[in-house]
Amino acid sequence: MLKVQIRDHAMFEWKPINVTIWNEFRVEKTNPEAGRVYPKGIHTALSDGLQPYGFRIQTATLDQPEHGLTAEVLDRTDVLIWWGHLAHEEVSDSIVNRIYEKVRQGMGLIVLHSGHYSKIFRKLMGTSCTLKWREDGKRERIWVVSPGHPIAEGIGSEYFVVQKEEMYGEFFDIPAPDELIFIGWFKGGEVFRSGCAYYRGMGKVFYFQPGHETFPTYYNKYVLHVIANAVKWAVPTTSGTEPYADNRHVEPLENTDC
Amino acid sequence: MLKVQIRDHAMFEWKPINVTIWNEFRVEKTNPEAGRVYPKGIHTALSDGLQPYGFRIQTATLDQPEHGLTAEVLDRTDVLIWWGHLAHEEVSDSIVNRIYEKVRQGMGLIVLHSGHYSKIFRKLMGTSCTLKWREDGKRERIWVVSPGHPIAEGIGSEYFVVQKEEMYGEFFDIPAPDELIFIGWFKGGEVFRSGCAYYRGMGKVFYFQPGHETFPTYYNKYVLHVIANAVKWAVPTTSGTEPYADNRHVEPLENTDC
Amino acid sequence: MLKVQIRDHAMFEWKPINVTIWNEFRVEKTNPEAGRVYPKGIHTALSDGLQPYGFRIQTATLDQPEHGLTAEVLDRTDVLIWWGHLAHEEVSDSIVNRIYEKVRQGMGLIVLHSGHYSKIFRKLMGTSCTLKWREDGKRERIWVVSPGHPIAEGIGSEYFVVQKEEMYGEFFDIPAPDELIFIGWFKGGEVFRSGCAYYRGMGKVFYFQPGHETFPTYYNKYVLHVIANAVKWAVPTTSGTEPYADNRHVEPLENTDC
Amino acid sequence: MLKVQIRDHAMFEWKPINVTIWNEFRVEKTNPEAGRVYPKGIHTALSDGLQPYGFRIQTATLDQPEHGLTAEVLDRTDVLIWWGHLAHEEVSDSIVNRIYEKVRQGMGLIVLHSGHYSKIFRKLMGTSCTLKWREDGKRERIWVVSPGHPIAEGIGSEYFVVQKEEMYGEFFDIPAPDELIFIGWFKGGEVFRSGCAYYRGMGKVFYFQPGHETFPTYYNKYVLHVIANAVKWAVPTTSGTEPYADNRHVEPLENTDC
Repeated sequence: MLKVQIRDHAMFEWKPINVTIWNEFRVEKTNPEAGRVYPKGIHTALSDGLQPYGFRIQTATLDQPEHGLTAEVLDRTDVLIWWGHLAHEEVSDSIVNRIYEKVRQGMGLIVLHSGHYSKIFRKLMGTSCTLKWREDGKRERIWVVSPGHPIAEGIGSEYFVVQKEEMYGEFFDIPAPDELIFIGWFKGGEVFRSGCAYYRGMGKVFYFQPGHETFPTYYNKYVLHVIANAVKWAVPTTSGTEPYADNRHVEPLENTDC
Repeated sequence: MLKVQIRDHAMFEWKPINVTIWNEFRVEKTNPEAGRVYPKGIHTALSDGLQPYGFRIQTATLDQPEHGLTAEVLDRTDVLIWWGHLAHEEVSDSIVNRIYEKVRQGMGLIVLHSGHYSKIFRKLMGTSCTLKWREDGKRERIWVVSPGHPIAEGIGSEYFVVQKEEMYGEFFDIPAPDELIFIGWFKGGEVFRSGCAYYRGMGKVFYFQPGHETFPTYYNKYVLHVIANAVKWAVPTTSGTEPYADNRHVEPLENTDC
Repeated sequence: MLKVQIRDHAMFEWKPINVTIWNEFRVEKTNPEAGRVYPKGIHTALSDGLQPYGFRIQTATLDQPEHGLTAEVLDRTDVLIWWGHLAHEEVSDSIVNRIYEKVRQGMGLIVLHSGHYSKIFRKLMGTSCTLKWREDGKRERIWVVSPGHPIAEGIGSEYFVVQKEEMYGEFFDIPAPDELIFIGWFKGGEVFRSGCAYYRGMGKVFYFQPGHETFPTYYNKYVLHVIANAVKWAVPTTSGTEPYADNRHVEPLENTDC
Repeated sequence: MLKVQIRDHAMFEWKPINVTIWNEFRVEKTNPEAGRVYPKGIHTALSDGLQPYGFRIQTATLDQPEHGLTAEVLDRTDVLIWWGHLAHEEVSDSIVNRIYEKVRQGMGLIVLHSGHYSKIFRKLMGTSCTLKWREDGKRERIWVVSPGHPIAEGIGSEYFVVQKEEMYGEFFDIPAPDELIFIGWFKGGEVFRSGCAYYRGMGKVFYFQPGHETFPTYYNKYVLHVIANAVKWAVPTTSGTEPYADNRHVEPLENTDC
């Protein structure tokens, strides 16, 4: 059984992590195979799978008003998880900008699988985020290359396997991750930087490769554990107030000799 | 005298580096102080200053058709140098996308000073690129923190001084540089990551802080030498063809046992 | 008042973080000024200052048997904090190797100030770790350049000030930090990468600049809060067992066609 | 045919790159298979293979006086290439320190294959440099993950294949590379960070995985081209003089108000 440990204790206040899981929720309705694997949607599977971790979870989908990501919802969100696939272009630019601003101000963002092509991920990365893909349902072997990283916590081995997964292969057009945590191996000869962590503004972003809609990836306990680790890693760090305000000099500018 | 060394020789073909210097060229006409320091525009000062390095240089400005950055010009450009200040919003989105695509395909980009707020830099960085600033004309002391980096070549000391510069201060909302080369010190108490190198797509981007329009920064031989180093670093590396095409498996996918 | 927040709750077991503070404890006895500022030693000041954070703290000093770092002590240590100055060479190689192995296996290490020249830090960095220094007692202004980083948590501003500090200046011969969190400004014109985080083996290392022995740095609440943040960041991540054992192939090596 | 391009021209002086290839040169004499593939030693194959690139090449081996790396030889060396396997412990510490000092002062170092366990590489990395290995002679597929990097220049594809290679697998206990250029795929399910670049002191270090002694890896034109690229990348950058000398303040320390 995977256990979660608390290391801090004194002078604390208990605040659960507020997680919003955003799922496009289209392909589960249009693709029978996806509908069979995720009858209530990928967001529900993720929500169920993350329950043991004690997060306060809500979900949102594309076809809700404002895609379910109203200002109130985002104000209450510590970490946003994103899964999208067929309808990236239907996400309105104003909502994308709203999410972007929240990340800049500290909200965490976890982008899963085909979310690599989402407007919000591409905006934050500044690159095309293209990659190779092949829907062959072979296994992916995900190796840990940063074993000291909190996102790798509790895996219990040097790798874990996703039994059926869609191949994603390099060259993955992303910025070099601030922290590269996983590399994936695929039977067809490809490799992929499957777990990539970034600091952006006052926020944190984690991209995680597994999650094709016709495979039961989001029931895999290792995949869920990594996502939970990433949620805890991505929680906003209250470093300070909006840092862009003051340009008055903080040291004396005495003498004009220069 | 700063010297340039050739280290390669055999089996070579001589190809000068094609540099396009893009300058907004507005403030030199509207601000008398800037006009006094750069009577023919910042682009001309840069072009003159970079002559000894043997690049093939052309210039382009905002008010030219297509901002001087036609498809033909960009096709012939190895490295684009960018200085903008007051009119970032007037750069058309289609030209920004054209530059963005060229960088993705390998073109180098050097962004100077107030260009941190340019559309192209903000698009490539994916962050707000905000910072502190103060036009006090005090000196900036630029320290080398990566002395083995080619962009730091030939400086001859641990730091160089820009006698009069506009203060830029942290927090500079950029991604952590792939390579941090310079940190700047300002009399008013601020520090700044003044030389930041990035790999984006198949291209390379270098941000360099100095260059306020009312100070003679672009006549400073150290500043010019760094820009020349950055040009040579940013030259397209012909690694391969467009890598996004083929998803056919390269290794046998024999047996369907997984 | 600085507060500590717990974000996790369910399925947890409470485990305080075991911190061992190692201090050379020589200069406090030989230098009257240092003795006046730290009458019971730097380790006692740090221990007192970190009490509110709820760590389980023990101390160790150079002149104890095995420098106080027996195998039993290190086995119980989650994070080791290190302050040394005059007697780096007196730390026995076998103890250095013992610490090195523990870090490799996951123990966290926080190296303070003049500890940059400690055998253990130099061994882990693989560089000379030289720097500039000047004992002028001017202030250091420490800027946050990674506001989303947990080590920057709770600072409440873009910078904090250490009123009197020994100047440390670049070029600091360290590997580029995996994560650069702070840059320091000094009145005499220098800058310094004052907060540097590294992943090494299965462990984590944080170097933090402030802490000259004749200044009351370790009573500064910001300095203490950063050290506490670093302790929490550096806690061992139980990613897996010793990963170096098995080289048996994990995928079928069928067919010998290659 | 792979071509080398010169991009610089004016104000240049022609200086060939001085390369010293160090090879242990033991296994070629004790293992008949290795002796068959490299009858004159790995160093000779590398020297022959690198001829077209116009470097000034000399070789050195373990059993020469001072391992062939006298002070004079190293003074004339811009980039040192290192291949070792069975006798890492026989390399004398004084020679290791001599190499270490030269790297700190700017010399480039390229470490190949089993050189990951060399004293010099382990000293520079500060980690154990352990990894998985299996001598199965299957192919390695090396993918480019930083296509804009000069070390990836001219490969002409997204990957290249080494037909027969010894598997090296993660977790490779190295610091996260400053620049990760290649990831390798192995048939048995492993992945490996096969091309890793580091800045250390004023020097540059590149680790490159291919090169088991019983396979003709060093006749592979892609492998040779990468090594040549790495040589050019690792050439000393004459940034400045020895930076550790002067601690006199460079800015006025007027007023003692702090």
